[in-house]
Amino acid sequence: MTTVTPQSPRIGIIGTGAIGGFYGLMLARAGFDVHFLLRSEYAAVSEQGLRVNSSVHGALHLHPVQAYAQAADMPPCDWLLVGTKSTGNVELAPTLAQVAAPDAKVVLLQNGLDVEDSLREHLPASLHLLGGLCYIGVHRSGPGVVEHQALGRVNLGYHSGSAASDENRQKEIVEAGAALFHQAGIESQAMANVHQARWHKLVWNVPFNGLSVLLKAGTTNLMADTSSRELIQALMAEVIQGAHACGHEIPASYAEQMFAMTETMDDYLPSMYHDYMHKRPLELAAIYARPLSAAKAAGCELPRMQALHQALSFIDRHNR
Amino acid sequence: MTTVTPQSPRIGIIGTGAIGGFYGLMLARAGFDVHFLLRSEYAAVSEQGLRVNSSVHGALHLHPVQAYAQAADMPPCDWLLVGTKSTGNVELAPTLAQVAAPDAKVVLLQNGLDVEDSLREHLPASLHLLGGLCYIGVHRSGPGVVEHQALGRVNLGYHSGSAASDENRQKEIVEAGAALFHQAGIESQAMANVHQARWHKLVWNVPFNGLSVLLKAGTTNLMADTSSRELIQALMAEVIQGAHACGHEIPASYAEQMFAMTETMDDYLPSMYHDYMHKRPLELAAIYARPLSAAKAAGCELPRMQALHQALSFIDRHNR
Repeated sequence: MTTVTPQSPRIGIIGTGAIGGFYGLMLARAGFDVHFLLRSEYAAVSEQGLRVNSSVHGALHLHPVQAYAQAADMPPCDWLLVGTKSTGNVELAPTLAQVAAPDAKVVLLQNGLDVEDSLREHLPASLHLLGGLCYIGVHRSGPGVVEHQALGRVNLGYHSGSAASDENRQKEIVEAGAALFHQAGIESQAMANVHQARWHKLVWNVPFNGLSVLLKAGTTNLMADTSSRELIQALMAEVIQGAHACGHEIPASYAEQMFAMTETMDDYLPSMYHDYMHKRPLELAAIYARPLSAAKAAGCELPRMQALHQALSFIDRHNR
Repeated sequence: MTTVTPQSPRIGIIGTGAIGGFYGLMLARAGFDVHFLLRSEYAAVSEQGLRVNSSVHGALHLHPVQAYAQAADMPPCDWLLVGTKSTGNVELAPTLAQVAAPDAKVVLLQNGLDVEDSLREHLPASLHLLGGLCYIGVHRSGPGVVEHQALGRVNLGYHSGSAASDENRQKEIVEAGAALFHQAGIESQAMANVHQARWHKLVWNVPFNGLSVLLKAGTTNLMADTSSRELIQALMAEVIQGAHACGHEIPASYAEQMFAMTETMDDYLPSMYHDYMHKRPLELAAIYARPLSAAKAAGCELPRMQALHQALSFIDRHNR
């Protein structure tokens, strides 16, 4: 055990993959009392601890780890950071309810639009639910081993819960969440509107996640070819159109910024590519279907994004 | 040699792959004097003849074959049926000029829009150039062996040549061409407008050629999945929009007909799939780039087709 007296609040990491492992380790390293829920990697992490090989922070090792194979064994947590795939959110609700301390905040560190909605109705009404938008390049390279390639920022927005009608309280909660990350050396921003924040994130995720699977290519190859560059830009423009139709203004310069940022990155294979290679379900509902239907309900067709979604749906169904 | 006295006119098959091999054999079988130009398969076809395994006509064998390894050895031909890839049309012009009899007709049995244009300027002005639209499922299964899976119709339209300003003469020529095919038991229709005929053909080629490469799937799988069905229909609708913008009316019912026809077919892998698998250049200019730029010049954007073209361009460049 670490000799530093753990700071309150108590933090639970639900799903210790690349995202959960990275942020959990960074928070534990900053002295927080962090408890990790694992499934297949419980034994490996209990014995060998968690490792993050970071291009930014160096080689980090957390050992021992407060690791749990079952939610029932965990102490009540004030913050629950959810790093699982959005495809399993409904099944996750009982676990979250079980581990939550009174007035707990659940933060979904997941991609896609409205990933909170399907979970919300299955959670106790009092629980605070937040969206967490991670701008980070990470992937698992083995049991309990995370490769951190670039970035790290987490933007937070309040979604729903007992502060739903109290904007000041929402702001307090979101700022408290951002402060946790700041103390762990991670950039974090409180967002006034979680829906708008999720649309922002889609500007990157829609082209790069899908095209990495469709074209079996990482960011370097996708950014090196004239045709895929044009397609990426056209898809980014469609996401901004969709956001606009849904009442969220994202300036065109934001897409240019994401595009330019990707150009400076080392080669990166987005999470959907890893899901595809491991024959796991692709996060198509969160990243494609829900934004498409939200835009359509607002009278806006996004034909390239729709075509990409249809092609990916075919690929996903033939990949299992 | 066959004992039947060859009927005039004399026919030259330029490029004896699946298309050239099938139509050449059918015409020779009907008693025409057919001469075949080959490259890599010259030796095999000279020794063993040409075979067509047809689901419609049974197992056909033409032996001996009037086969040539060099255009210079061929006699002057009245009709030249071109079965090579449209990607090589410019390089083909000297061969065609060499083999053409006076007043010869060159028929491009190729997919895509305006495949005649790039060739035209390199041909003697007097030569008649026709487009031939093949509605057929064929592929090569070995040297000199063609598998004929379905259909067979060839629709013909006059493109350019010494009858450019004489519509009656054009009609005569095109009808004479259709009559040749009729005598060989092949459906064939004279089309008043070769451009319109090529847009018609694109209604099938744009979705099925591209998606077979993008999704590594034949018609059966593409027609069995809800998402790919929707994408096929949306792409067909875009081709009809593009044709409309370019002044060619294709009724929506034509797309429904092509869609329904594909549903009745045995599994079929379009030519672009075979090109991809053999790491040959894909016919993207003829099937995607030219129709897209013709539509764009007429003020019409076809976003799904453009996205598909961009994805295929990426794949093509990484496939060689």
